[in-house]
Amino acid sequence: MSGYAPVIVLVRPQLGQNIGKAARAMLNFGLTEMRLVAPRDGWPNPEAGPAASGADIVLEKAAVFDTVAEAVADCSLVYASTVRRRDLVMSVVGPEEMAGQIRASDGRSAILFGPERSGLESADVALANHIVTVPINPEFGSLNLAQAVILLAYEWSRGEALVQPTRKDDAEPPAPHAELESLIGRIDRELDEAGYYFPPDRTEATRLTFRTLLTKPGWSSRELKAMHGMVRALSDKRRRR
Amino acid sequence: MSGYAPVIVLVRPQLGQNIGKAARAMLNFGLTEMRLVAPRDGWPNPEAGPAASGADIVLEKAAVFDTVAEAVADCSLVYASTVRRRDLVMSVVGPEEMAGQIRASDGRSAILFGPERSGLESADVALANHIVTVPINPEFGSLNLAQAVILLAYEWSRGEALVQPTRKDDAEPPAPHAELESLIGRIDRELDEAGYYFPPDRTEATRLTFRTLLTKPGWSSRELKAMHGMVRALSDKRRRR
Repeated sequence: MSGYAPVIVLVRPQLGQNIGKAARAMLNFGLTEMRLVAPRDGWPNPEAGPAASGADIVLEKAAVFDTVAEAVADCSLVYASTVRRRDLVMSVVGPEEMAGQIRASDGRSAILFGPERSGLESADVALANHIVTVPINPEFGSLNLAQAVILLAYEWSRGEALVQPTRKDDAEPPAPHAELESLIGRIDRELDEAGYYFPPDRTEATRLTFRTLLTKPGWSSRELKAMHGMVRALSDKRRRR
Repeated sequence: MSGYAPVIVLVRPQLGQNIGKAARAMLNFGLTEMRLVAPRDGWPNPEAGPAASGADIVLEKAAVFDTVAEAVADCSLVYASTVRRRDLVMSVVGPEEMAGQIRASDGRSAILFGPERSGLESADVALANHIVTVPINPEFGSLNLAQAVILLAYEWSRGEALVQPTRKDDAEPPAPHAELESLIGRIDRELDEAGYYFPPDRTEATRLTFRTLLTKPGWSSRELKAMHGMVRALSDKRRRR
């Protein structure tokens, strides 16, 4: 059984707009539990709603705490979304590893995100079991709050989906071979009639070329019918308009 | 050796701000090649720069095209970032599968993103080899442009970090899109001349059908040449009648 969906904790978030965007990013991937620690402009914040673009349920359910410790009191597995710290010797994991650990956990998990301008302080990070870092371009890397939330939420949900059998794509199944053979045969006869197989010593090689390139697609019955129509239209006397 | 880094193609993008945000999202994960198709407000667009938050190099290198076909002419593997379509029978993959295919490809790949309000049109999607869909909360799902770009860029870069699987079989690589377009164009003209497109209200649907079934195989340059030969031979026959 997969673990609890992680709680998303915004620590001292500044702009209501960013809280709203974070809510939207969460709900995009099925996360609904947001907790706010000492939001700068208090709560509720009327600027969060418009930016949430419909993810109001997340904002409505959001719980507010004075400290990070209180916000994660019921969580046994806490991640700090930040970069490696020189002053802290801690486990650092990537998003995929985090998702796997969350899924395997029997208790609740939480992911901490810091204030937009400054990020998490060491005191916040030290409360976590792991640092989670999104591996980003070393020459150009900075994710804003909503981006960090969406990437970690995505990675968690991706992991959830792997537990279930993957849906096949909905391309139509290839037609039975006899139907393909019928198209190949038609094209072969038309090309022969058109005098295409010349010189004779190249005929078999050419036939093989057409056979393989017509077999390669794995066309469905419907697609083969369309190809028959195409071949007929190209070869036959012009239809009257 | 891993495949080329994918080209990011913004089709008829509207706000300069969103182009800037897309550039930033790209560079966060090491993607630098952006192409713009008929940007609404022209190019350069002074509103893109500030929103790019330092990803100016992507904007400076961005190339502009009039049509999607021109923008992907040199690409043999094209993805349309959108949802499943009822009017198109096409392969639909998730981001991880897409990343694997891009990595395994010998040719260039491209990912198409549509205009912010309306998304890609079917005519755009039909130019692609696959639809790529981010599996999103069915009860609340809509990613804006920058979010879609960042998630696909992230998934590609995540794949790059993993150990390379063994190379696929040695089938010839698919031809660049421009060569496929040439075959499609020829068949289209011949069918038109043959009076095939009748009645007129079905013409676009029929064109789309042929486009998708001719795109599906991923024919190599050599195979496309053979198809050209076939089309010519059949059509000459028709004209002699």
